Amino acid sequence: MKFANYAKKYLPKINKEIQLIFNRKLEKVNNAFLKDYYSELKDYFLAGGKRIRPLMCIASYNAFNGEREDQILKASIGTEFLHNASLIHDDIIDKDDFRRGKPSFHYRFRQYHAKYQLKKMVARDFGNNLGILGGDSAFFFGLEAYLSNEYDDASNIRGIRLYEQAYHEVCDGVLIEIDMVNKKDLSISDYIEMISLKTGALIEKSVLIGANYARVEEKYQKLLSIYAINLGIIFQIIDDILGTFGDEKVTGKPTDGDIREGKKTALLIGARNTLKGAELTRLNELIENQEMTDFDVQEVRELFKSADVINSSKHLALKYYEGAKAALNELKLVIKESELEFFDDLLNFVYDRTF
Amino acid sequence: MKFANYAKKYLPKINKEIQLIFNRKLEKVNNAFLKDYYSELKDYFLAGGKRIRPLMCIASYNAFNGEREDQILKASIGTEFLHNASLIHDDIIDKDDFRRGKPSFHYRFRQYHAKYQLKKMVARDFGNNLGILGGDSAFFFGLEAYLSNEYDDASNIRGIRLYEQAYHEVCDGVLIEIDMVNKKDLSISDYIEMISLKTGALIEKSVLIGANYARVEEKYQKLLSIYAINLGIIFQIIDDILGTFGDEKVTGKPTDGDIREGKKTALLIGARNTLKGAELTRLNELIENQEMTDFDVQEVRELFKSADVINSSKHLALKYYEGAKAALNELKLVIKESELEFFDDLLNFVYDRTF
Repeated sequence: MKFANYAKKYLPKINKEIQLIFNRKLEKVNNAFLKDYYSELKDYFLAGGKRIRPLMCIASYNAFNGEREDQILKASIGTEFLHNASLIHDDIIDKDDFRRGKPSFHYRFRQYHAKYQLKKMVARDFGNNLGILGGDSAFFFGLEAYLSNEYDDASNIRGIRLYEQAYHEVCDGVLIEIDMVNKKDLSISDYIEMISLKTGALIEKSVLIGANYARVEEKYQKLLSIYAINLGIIFQIIDDILGTFGDEKVTGKPTDGDIREGKKTALLIGARNTLKGAELTRLNELIENQEMTDFDVQEVRELFKSADVINSSKHLALKYYEGAKAALNELKLVIKESELEFFDDLLNFVYDRTF
Repeated sequence: MKFANYAKKYLPKINKEIQLIFNRKLEKVNNAFLKDYYSELKDYFLAGGKRIRPLMCIASYNAFNGEREDQILKASIGTEFLHNASLIHDDIIDKDDFRRGKPSFHYRFRQYHAKYQLKKMVARDFGNNLGILGGDSAFFFGLEAYLSNEYDDASNIRGIRLYEQAYHEVCDGVLIEIDMVNKKDLSISDYIEMISLKTGALIEKSVLIGANYARVEEKYQKLLSIYAINLGIIFQIIDDILGTFGDEKVTGKPTDGDIREGKKTALLIGARNTLKGAELTRLNELIENQEMTDFDVQEVRELFKSADVINSSKHLALKYYEGAKAALNELKLVIKESELEFFDDLLNFVYDRTF
């Protein structure tokens, strides 16, 4: 089944499970502020998102087993909670006030502060503080995925272990990225290591969680891992390209953020490894600037173009595309055709996406 | 066994288990910045703390069973991780740069930023960002308590459920407290509801986790709950007193923070319910001030004294002392004598503590 059809089939069901978790909490809450908080969190979760991680978890389960679709739906949303929890905290860290064209979670509470004219705390702090708690809440709500299904305890314990590992790997990736901002001589392999953790790990754990409940043999789990990590790497490389050269109206994200923060994207590392002499010196000068003007950002963009980094990044992504494809080829003989098509189509979707 | 002796017996063992979790991670880490990060986190965890929550978990287990001391030690540290994770995030929220007389976790990374003269990010943001991640890491490390012991899966799943519930209740308490800052007419019962969640819930879950592994009958779990929530309430009331009238050298915390933030402590709510006329008006005026001077803080302190809030708060705590004592009396017949003595002595310790 094509990715779009798979999404069409499962997205409403995934969203229903997410909704269920928040509704269970909201039913028990009386305090007006708590009601606002959990409603905001629910609304944030349901405001959008491609649900790639739950879809991959479901597909990985269905590819081998598929017996209890109702139950894998419940277990599939754990990594989506983890993903969104990380995004809530990342948006505070990166000072991103918008995501997918909508206010980020902490920004919603900055608006809330203004709306109710709260006194004792300034709006920015209030927003960030509620954002810290919001992310924390979401990390814990994610555990519900493994605590409120009908699978046996041993499978759920393994699920929770994968959930825990996923977080630690994502965190390591984010930490390495923070550290990289202060480093110059970085190779593409440093970058790949970082994004394998930051983006690849959670996608990998999503398919492994599906495989866990389907009791997939270890050798096939290994292949699913390779496919998923490669997909994650491609996802991030394309994300880097779109983050600077995408269409803001389509991506919903400003295209100057990465450059301003000096983020070590595929573009920046690629440009530094390609440019020479005056161009390289100028690029480094611009990036090290604490406060970049719009002109500075535009100049960086031009230097990127001069280094032809869009093409070299696409070329880099192609290597991982082929790695994912090879793993998928080996899985061909053991997984269901509809899921093979899903994984194959998803790979193309991620590689070609413009949003 | 007296609380001090119980602590003496188990504290080194508890710390060893905490250390083990960080060492396992550190062994696997190569990146220099990750090494610094996890070493800092380990150091922060081992820098101090009374370990009341693990001790209560162990005592609750030993009171009924005690067969597998090596295993309950592992399971006991979950709530200590949750506690410290919350503290790390709370210290960012409350802008507390010190805790127990030592730098708070986010402040350590503000110092780290200065030490390495990092460029792209300002020191305050760098510290806060690492603090957000540090708390998140700690929440997940806490899961290890239930994933790396030898108890059966069903018990561990119940342990994780209690861990999850604990977080949500603590979070609800913190949220209600944030909301209360902007409210005037609050009763003591609003306050008690808030601290039952903010402080009581995690202490309650600590004994319930011990009881879970000891397979304690539900009626006795109920009594343990009552004891622990009451203890938590006393703990917080005394904390409020010490937070404003304690000896900074002994508590390691500045005594102007709560007043400056307009925190709804037992003292402030008590004073508002006692003072009348000009004194009440003046108190409200002072507290609503965004930026309080040292003189303002001192004046609030004088108004608190005029309202005799230390005594009334102590009197309030006494009610919960008696509640805890009554629950303990009912448990007398079924729990071991050494743990009965521990719980009884702990109650006195918490009620009389000056640090």
